[in-house]
Amino acid sequence: MSMEQVNVNIGLLGCGTVGTSLLELIHEQREVISQRTGLVIDVAMVSVRDVSKSRTAPIDPTLFTDDPKQVVESADVDVVVEVMGGIDPSRELISKALELGKPVVTANKELLAAHGEELYALADQSGVDLLFEAAVAGGIPIIRPLRESLAGEPITRVMGIVNGTTNFILTKMTEEGMSFADALEEAQKLGYAESDPTADVGGHDAAAKAAIIASLAFGGRVNSDDVYVEGITEITPEDIEFAHRLGHCIKLLAIVEKQESNGAESLCVRVHPSMVPLTHPLANVQESFNAIFVEGDSVGELMFYGRGAGGPPTASAVLGDLIDASCNIKRSSAASIGDFTSINISPIADLETQYFFEVEVEDQPGVLAQVAAVLGEQNVSIQSMEQEGLESEARLIFITHKALESSFQAAIGALDKLKIVRNIGTVLRVIGID
Amino acid sequence: MSMEQVNVNIGLLGCGTVGTSLLELIHEQREVISQRTGLVIDVAMVSVRDVSKSRTAPIDPTLFTDDPKQVVESADVDVVVEVMGGIDPSRELISKALELGKPVVTANKELLAAHGEELYALADQSGVDLLFEAAVAGGIPIIRPLRESLAGEPITRVMGIVNGTTNFILTKMTEEGMSFADALEEAQKLGYAESDPTADVGGHDAAAKAAIIASLAFGGRVNSDDVYVEGITEITPEDIEFAHRLGHCIKLLAIVEKQESNGAESLCVRVHPSMVPLTHPLANVQESFNAIFVEGDSVGELMFYGRGAGGPPTASAVLGDLIDASCNIKRSSAASIGDFTSINISPIADLETQYFFEVEVEDQPGVLAQVAAVLGEQNVSIQSMEQEGLESEARLIFITHKALESSFQAAIGALDKLKIVRNIGTVLRVIGID
Repeated sequence: MSMEQVNVNIGLLGCGTVGTSLLELIHEQREVISQRTGLVIDVAMVSVRDVSKSRTAPIDPTLFTDDPKQVVESADVDVVVEVMGGIDPSRELISKALELGKPVVTANKELLAAHGEELYALADQSGVDLLFEAAVAGGIPIIRPLRESLAGEPITRVMGIVNGTTNFILTKMTEEGMSFADALEEAQKLGYAESDPTADVGGHDAAAKAAIIASLAFGGRVNSDDVYVEGITEITPEDIEFAHRLGHCIKLLAIVEKQESNGAESLCVRVHPSMVPLTHPLANVQESFNAIFVEGDSVGELMFYGRGAGGPPTASAVLGDLIDASCNIKRSSAASIGDFTSINISPIADLETQYFFEVEVEDQPGVLAQVAAVLGEQNVSIQSMEQEGLESEARLIFITHKALESSFQAAIGALDKLKIVRNIGTVLRVIGID
Repeated sequence: MSMEQVNVNIGLLGCGTVGTSLLELIHEQREVISQRTGLVIDVAMVSVRDVSKSRTAPIDPTLFTDDPKQVVESADVDVVVEVMGGIDPSRELISKALELGKPVVTANKELLAAHGEELYALADQSGVDLLFEAAVAGGIPIIRPLRESLAGEPITRVMGIVNGTTNFILTKMTEEGMSFADALEEAQKLGYAESDPTADVGGHDAAAKAAIIASLAFGGRVNSDDVYVEGITEITPEDIEFAHRLGHCIKLLAIVEKQESNGAESLCVRVHPSMVPLTHPLANVQESFNAIFVEGDSVGELMFYGRGAGGPPTASAVLGDLIDASCNIKRSSAASIGDFTSINISPIADLETQYFFEVEVEDQPGVLAQVAAVLGEQNVSIQSMEQEGLESEARLIFITHKALESSFQAAIGALDKLKIVRNIGTVLRVIGID
């Protein structure tokens, strides 16, 4: 069996870390790819901000241009690969490419989380591929499994460690007892965190990925604004120590979960630091690694683990998509994203989950009874409690059974007004093992 | 955007555990699948050995037949799903379906490991899909990621826990100190092991999966006969205890690894019990769970984790393929498996790896020097050693640096002839973290 050779010319938008790694990978793997798939991949044009900058990518320097529109419109370009990031002008460039009937591969989570549906529809109308494996969890194949392998699976929950920066920081805080500030500084020194770390540590990067995962796993329209977000900036080494004492670690999770409230199905999409049982597979995901844990009625539990960022892993995911899109050109086909239905997004107030919280109280008899009474009034029941004496006060640490977020917050509000309560410490949602 | 509806009729070969789960899953998910993909999936015909047997599957009993050929040939059947297992008559039935231009979804690892290349070629010639996600690691999406997401990745090694029975047995032996025989008995009682457990505990089931993984990950022709196999029947609780003392656990791994010997590239494909560092992600895969760990130059480390067997997880994987094949019918396309090249399979003698072994020697001065001298003659160097006194003898436990299998075996042979050596215990290959 010998394969028909097909030439595919790609136009690359952006040549930063991922773009450079991609050019290197294509250069190295060109022979193997052609042997296995019959595709001869060539780079036709690369748009960059500054053409005069010296670059290490293994590519003819005359192929650089500072006009991305030219790349998209060039008759020499069969597939457009976008690794510039940001919403503008990526949105316009990708739309243009799709309108021209050119498949697009992108790593742009921000764009897809904000305008995914519009772009997916455009791709479907034009009958071409819009592929974006690299947009979520870098090198880990998660988009394709969700779109294809699990297309018929009744998925109930997806939980992911999808931000390497925050996982690195939490790992350092856990293993070395560092403060958040010190761990962030080390992450910045090692290149795991940017000089302005807000998007990562504030949870916004994870929220964009949560929106994309939610859309694919549940076939509904979900965008960044639908995601409830809390970052990790308030987490202290003490919180982590308490979590450990109760058999848990703290991870920043993106969680997409099916819920029923008042008989109607809805989706709760949230990013926040979570207490994860040490026996859960997500608890072992350390450093800057990412992992996505999928639960379905039929398939049970799945986990996808790997490098969520960095040039080479992300380039690997882009190349997989590029080969897929190119094969589809060869057979005049395209993968449809499918129809998105409108889906109820439940507000965080309607969430039902377990909670961890910590209260400093005056050390006097009857204190626990008062606290328990306030919780009981809001139907918050206690699963486990630990008490420790401080100087003139006591610290109570609780894990609750499942409770409604609105009730739980009402209970916390009421506790805060009790005379015997000196301070309410960190409150964390707990991931149960069902 | 509203989707064109397309009816797809499936013919099911076999209605055991997986077949029944599949019929249930299709029944439950039919509505959702049609909403998301536009595919209306109906079951046209189901072949079973005994039509008169009463069955729980949610399907019109008149659709059963005892003639699988009729299912394949029926004009009412668009896609054939084979979940009968075994080589005959599955091979003939699948070939016939492909020749008739019908896509085939199969869970049959044994068949693909023995005759995969012939069937892949037939599918390519007919321009239809032959999909087999369920053949390796049940519900875990690994075939599609290897075929598509990682199509351009320079993969260097794949290591998998791909047999749930043996992982369950080893977990019991590790956690409860059970003997192999007792753990096997418990596995049989719980339905994790068959009454004749040879295929599982002897490593042959894992070997078939190793052959399939090797073909896809490295694009070469590999079949079951190319796989070096050792089972777990000789492992003792004592071995597991020694392994733990040296920071390792014991797992039955299917390993596919690129090697260079004498400047030529070759592939070493093997299944054997392995010492896995406790810090390695594979060490945390417990009970009957499976996991596949992939290493590539660009993507780094990936792991895919989940349920490797059982009706519902396997049915989930079959359904994913079924939807994929059906979408391809809709767009008159098919996924090609790509060209397989001939690839050198290196004999186990050429393997370079680390070894664990245990020697019982007479307790007298100079013994270690004699043992070390024999190892040195064969260029086997020691990474770590522990010695413990028994009654009149001593036990030496070694982990070597990387050594050539043939040299190492020669050293073991020479040690066995030493007067001071009373017994050579278990020998295990060690998985390094590079």
